[in-house]
Amino acid sequence: MSNSGPGRHFLQIPGPTNLPERVKRALSRPTIDHRGPDWARLTLRILEQLKQVFQTSGPVIVYPSSGSGAWEAAMVNTLSAGDRVLFGSNGQFSSNWQKVAAGVGLTVEELQGDWRCPIDMAALENRLAEDRGREIRALALVHNETSTGVVNDVAGARAALDRTGHDALLMVDVVSSLGAMAYKHEEWGVDVTIAGSQKGLMTPPGLGFNAPSPKALAASSSAGMPRSYWNWEPVMAFNRDGFYPYTPATNLLYGLDVALSLLLEEGLPQVFARHARLAEATRRAVRGWGLDVFCRDAKAYSSALTAVTMPAGYNPDVLRQVILERFDMSLGTGLGQVKGKVFRIGHLGDMNDLMLAGTLCGVEMGLAACDVPHVSGGVSEALAFLAKDP
Amino acid sequence: MSNSGPGRHFLQIPGPTNLPERVKRALSRPTIDHRGPDWARLTLRILEQLKQVFQTSGPVIVYPSSGSGAWEAAMVNTLSAGDRVLFGSNGQFSSNWQKVAAGVGLTVEELQGDWRCPIDMAALENRLAEDRGREIRALALVHNETSTGVVNDVAGARAALDRTGHDALLMVDVVSSLGAMAYKHEEWGVDVTIAGSQKGLMTPPGLGFNAPSPKALAASSSAGMPRSYWNWEPVMAFNRDGFYPYTPATNLLYGLDVALSLLLEEGLPQVFARHARLAEATRRAVRGWGLDVFCRDAKAYSSALTAVTMPAGYNPDVLRQVILERFDMSLGTGLGQVKGKVFRIGHLGDMNDLMLAGTLCGVEMGLAACDVPHVSGGVSEALAFLAKDP
Amino acid sequence: MSNSGPGRHFLQIPGPTNLPERVKRALSRPTIDHRGPDWARLTLRILEQLKQVFQTSGPVIVYPSSGSGAWEAAMVNTLSAGDRVLFGSNGQFSSNWQKVAAGVGLTVEELQGDWRCPIDMAALENRLAEDRGREIRALALVHNETSTGVVNDVAGARAALDRTGHDALLMVDVVSSLGAMAYKHEEWGVDVTIAGSQKGLMTPPGLGFNAPSPKALAASSSAGMPRSYWNWEPVMAFNRDGFYPYTPATNLLYGLDVALSLLLEEGLPQVFARHARLAEATRRAVRGWGLDVFCRDAKAYSSALTAVTMPAGYNPDVLRQVILERFDMSLGTGLGQVKGKVFRIGHLGDMNDLMLAGTLCGVEMGLAACDVPHVSGGVSEALAFLAKDP
Amino acid sequence: MSNSGPGRHFLQIPGPTNLPERVKRALSRPTIDHRGPDWARLTLRILEQLKQVFQTSGPVIVYPSSGSGAWEAAMVNTLSAGDRVLFGSNGQFSSNWQKVAAGVGLTVEELQGDWRCPIDMAALENRLAEDRGREIRALALVHNETSTGVVNDVAGARAALDRTGHDALLMVDVVSSLGAMAYKHEEWGVDVTIAGSQKGLMTPPGLGFNAPSPKALAASSSAGMPRSYWNWEPVMAFNRDGFYPYTPATNLLYGLDVALSLLLEEGLPQVFARHARLAEATRRAVRGWGLDVFCRDAKAYSSALTAVTMPAGYNPDVLRQVILERFDMSLGTGLGQVKGKVFRIGHLGDMNDLMLAGTLCGVEMGLAACDVPHVSGGVSEALAFLAKDP
Repeated sequence: MSNSGPGRHFLQIPGPTNLPERVKRALSRPTIDHRGPDWARLTLRILEQLKQVFQTSGPVIVYPSSGSGAWEAAMVNTLSAGDRVLFGSNGQFSSNWQKVAAGVGLTVEELQGDWRCPIDMAALENRLAEDRGREIRALALVHNETSTGVVNDVAGARAALDRTGHDALLMVDVVSSLGAMAYKHEEWGVDVTIAGSQKGLMTPPGLGFNAPSPKALAASSSAGMPRSYWNWEPVMAFNRDGFYPYTPATNLLYGLDVALSLLLEEGLPQVFARHARLAEATRRAVRGWGLDVFCRDAKAYSSALTAVTMPAGYNPDVLRQVILERFDMSLGTGLGQVKGKVFRIGHLGDMNDLMLAGTLCGVEMGLAACDVPHVSGGVSEALAFLAKDP
Repeated sequence: MSNSGPGRHFLQIPGPTNLPERVKRALSRPTIDHRGPDWARLTLRILEQLKQVFQTSGPVIVYPSSGSGAWEAAMVNTLSAGDRVLFGSNGQFSSNWQKVAAGVGLTVEELQGDWRCPIDMAALENRLAEDRGREIRALALVHNETSTGVVNDVAGARAALDRTGHDALLMVDVVSSLGAMAYKHEEWGVDVTIAGSQKGLMTPPGLGFNAPSPKALAASSSAGMPRSYWNWEPVMAFNRDGFYPYTPATNLLYGLDVALSLLLEEGLPQVFARHARLAEATRRAVRGWGLDVFCRDAKAYSSALTAVTMPAGYNPDVLRQVILERFDMSLGTGLGQVKGKVFRIGHLGDMNDLMLAGTLCGVEMGLAACDVPHVSGGVSEALAFLAKDP
Repeated sequence: MSNSGPGRHFLQIPGPTNLPERVKRALSRPTIDHRGPDWARLTLRILEQLKQVFQTSGPVIVYPSSGSGAWEAAMVNTLSAGDRVLFGSNGQFSSNWQKVAAGVGLTVEELQGDWRCPIDMAALENRLAEDRGREIRALALVHNETSTGVVNDVAGARAALDRTGHDALLMVDVVSSLGAMAYKHEEWGVDVTIAGSQKGLMTPPGLGFNAPSPKALAASSSAGMPRSYWNWEPVMAFNRDGFYPYTPATNLLYGLDVALSLLLEEGLPQVFARHARLAEATRRAVRGWGLDVFCRDAKAYSSALTAVTMPAGYNPDVLRQVILERFDMSLGTGLGQVKGKVFRIGHLGDMNDLMLAGTLCGVEMGLAACDVPHVSGGVSEALAFLAKDP
Repeated sequence: MSNSGPGRHFLQIPGPTNLPERVKRALSRPTIDHRGPDWARLTLRILEQLKQVFQTSGPVIVYPSSGSGAWEAAMVNTLSAGDRVLFGSNGQFSSNWQKVAAGVGLTVEELQGDWRCPIDMAALENRLAEDRGREIRALALVHNETSTGVVNDVAGARAALDRTGHDALLMVDVVSSLGAMAYKHEEWGVDVTIAGSQKGLMTPPGLGFNAPSPKALAASSSAGMPRSYWNWEPVMAFNRDGFYPYTPATNLLYGLDVALSLLLEEGLPQVFARHARLAEATRRAVRGWGLDVFCRDAKAYSSALTAVTMPAGYNPDVLRQVILERFDMSLGTGLGQVKGKVFRIGHLGDMNDLMLAGTLCGVEMGLAACDVPHVSGGVSEALAFLAKDP
């Protein structure tokens, strides 16, 4: 089913990511009564673990949905039709999110950024300062741009809001950073954090998350759009006893429960250090090949994925196709304005050194097989880095 | 996790239902690239199988959502804010659906029905006929009321619309009938069929479905509410090539693929006959105990579940609790206006004679253990029926 | 694969038995290095748990083998070619074991017993007393005869040996009693206990066990037959550090580890009480049908299975075939001298009340479907018993 | 359980090997009645597939046992106590097999060979020619020495027997070659082929195999030792209808069934070519590091594993330990006379290019981390080879 050849498929897109064996087994547990006592215990444990992973003392709301559903949820709970949302716009997922916002009737404003760089905090602060009428009701930022491997400065955005005394809600997408890179919902003053299950959380796709701040909760009770499925309030009310207002996605939640345990057993600081190390090894390989890491700002490098700029005149999707057929590895394509210009290596989730090494070998062999101009030996650079004491 | 005692838990709520072994194993497959060729093949096969199960030649849209999400999807795609929807109202799931409709800004009108009977088709026709201004934009009916075990007459509703020349969209919830009882989306002239994965489809909860008619599709392109996640159009567009506009719930779809194959391998007529037989055996047991089947109309008996009226003065939830603790079986509680008055026996999905027999034995022992007035031997009635040639 | 129909197959043969869900999942873990540290930890934990289940402070040796292999192992380690072994002979598994003994070159002597009764301890003691030359080197007894549901008196056999001052080794087959009925290797003075994984131990077939006493170990170092695979010594030597002298059956051992944990978590006394209760319910059903429990001696009733005498002129295998085809349940056939005369109901392992209830319903319906003379309502007798407080 | 760190453990010992995902799932199927019709169908299909994999038109006998059990089985079925067996002796598994032979009472004669080379066929022919009294009753050869990665010439041994007109039985151990390298039981005139499940057959350990020739079958009916468990005859008799004379290892056989299908779907020639390619890449890496492949004879290179000679003064087991702890990979230790001198890289079974690449990267990093003198860049040599068109 999943791939036709012998051996393990290398799933090195930046999500969905490889499932840990324990998560896979948990998915196959029998479904149980979602209104019984065993279920309540499981739910309460999951919600408690989620708080630790989101770094919040407040609630985390879980939806049976994709991450894009969680974007919609964040907005329809807190904003009203026509409200202006300022998007830090430096990647495809920011663009996608803007479409969702427009789709539900919000006014979208883009703070254009260079896709190869994080959103400029000075420019952001200027725009907020200009907004004397406080028309901007929310500021939306993607923490880790899955399309580019560029990390935006969430704490900086909070500071910009604070310095300008702007009351816009700060909404942050951590779909591809949560569980891979340090993220602090509460400390960084985020009002709604939006996540999905299928990347750093090492669970299959199908669960979306919202973590609201007290300010966001207050907004949701006084404002918001007509809503039912996404409505935070009944979910939080039922969650208090360990239940949901609808039938929850039992088996995905079995998987999530195990995946959260794995993260917390390893320890979040260690999880983040592991990802940072794998990412650095990847960048060393890329430079060793004489290729460019798409992200230009070393402070903004992603620990979750690395987008690689393809030499001019060479099609990254031909490379990806050859690598899939010859080496049974899936890499990420270029999206939006970088389609045909980059490919992406996912290195997040249930990953270790040798999985990454195999991945980088697959890229190096693909470059050779496709006659893409490069220096062979990028893998050696990565190995030299990884072989040093961790 | 799923239950503390030895042996298999009897999950006899009317959904989520017992997962077939093959489905459980499919859930544990590795996640793959949702944009790769293997994924496209899987998606196209699932969509083709869904058409057969829904009995439609048109599209079936799959959401990562609960069934309640699919209710919302049906409405926001086809109706506009303030539009009037007439609900056949004879059970809790109709009530729940009405809340969803109100939540997204529609005007809800109830055609009140007796919860123990199907919606009266003459009364429905009268109401439609009265509606000369065609204010009713949609008629919403639950095919099989999961709270009562009463089946509404979908073909009759179509006929009522046709006879009155009413152009309201016919929306039908088949969450607990699809895969358990005959349902014909196209032949019965339904405009939007709404379903979920976790009952007759024998897949864990987490997938919602909409099957739109050409008329519903036309409505969705000219009307509808601000929408993004639920928007049919991009899903259908991506589905043409076997993809989704967001990351699909890969592992649940693995399970669905297998479950649909199981249904089609058994053959839908045989699947429905099996359910009808199990339901008849259950009713014979209930009557054998001297208790009442909650549904008063023999033509409206559900094949998916049987709600049983508790003798006055006895609490069905005490009975359920004892049965859970002593016999490790989950039964359905009474919902809404029948809370404290009925309990529900689910007999749909991956069920056979001996699973039902064990279930009925658990009920009979529970009645005895709780000193609920009853005639012992209801099980014998069921066995006598099942032992005859099928 | 496992059965063609919908729903769960009822596997009610007296072994292999139904696997607990947790055991099934454990089987699917990745295989690991059988010479690495994780493996050693697992092995030592399993061996420790086995001691508790066998009720021994000595070693338990695990073979990749069937139970019949473990019979052979017990004998080739302790006896020499031509040695005389006295078999308590009251069932098919005793006969099978005798064939194994003869096959490896031992002299077999049968103490014939009535298959419907346990071996007569007085007759046994007489035979031992007569054996003044101490030609009998071993006394072999099946604790729970899987072919008949008759339990032999192991402590009685020990007493007979002691009273006659006979030094024969006492060898006991607990293949179908271990984990289902009280068994005390050490307290009862057994010299070699022989078991298999697939019955009360709730693990797939493929593992055989020997638990030797100090006396048996002494015999094995001074006597025994040419042996390699079955040789206890290297296994015990490697086991000290958590390893095996050959590649162990890693995945079956994963399952065994979980199954042993389940037994010990439930508590052995509770496990045995549960089995006794299910067995009593079964016998009440049998008598309720007006049929005979094959075992004539109430003190010798098996908690693991019940053999039922078929009314004269009726073929139990026709009944079993109908029950398999119509009700998807496997029952045990009559073996050896009771072929065509009995069928067997297994009620051991991962079993609970409702699984048994479904099982008994299947038998009652089968009797009806095959027009076997019986009183309907045996199930009701079982339910009346089970419904009382446990 | 299987490893403490995140990501997939690299199991690169020469068996047990990595289980394919489909095999892992098959292991978790419910156990069924080993005397029922579904079981018979499964058994007959497995036996048919085994014939193809062993390249025989005769029977293949499956034991619940380790591979060492299958050695014993081959001998006790065909030889008599004291019979002389000539062993081609050039590795640890030949030595182990000799111990088994001695343990069961055979006379062992070693044809000593250099462990770094295949058994010399001229020397073998000389010894056979000298044996005018035909005292040698069997010639035993390990096809692929798992301890050294040296392949012995089975067809050459047959030719030596034929040229000398010697009637000794030819017994060949293919435990680590079957399913990885071309092997032709019938065409090469082998009398008993001995195998195990856990290497090229990609199934967990716990199943042993014997494939006898007509001559071996004839020997087994006229000679052989006292035997029961290993006795071919009853197994073959029961197998005719799809059954076994004991309870077979149901769940391992589920796995084997799937694994055989995977091999035959891929096609044996392609399977062997894949292994040969991975082996060649491994040797190029070894030479790239400036290390020696232990096998000196290029015609005798194993496709299943590569033993690497450690530079003098360096302990391969320290290297292995560091690689396990730092890179979560298991490699094979040196056995017997090469303990402390070599380590072994397994590259057989469910393997592909990137799994091998990750493996080789782990070795290269381990060499660096342990300061073992080597040239970095061996991985690059392997990649250059693999990147060329396959």
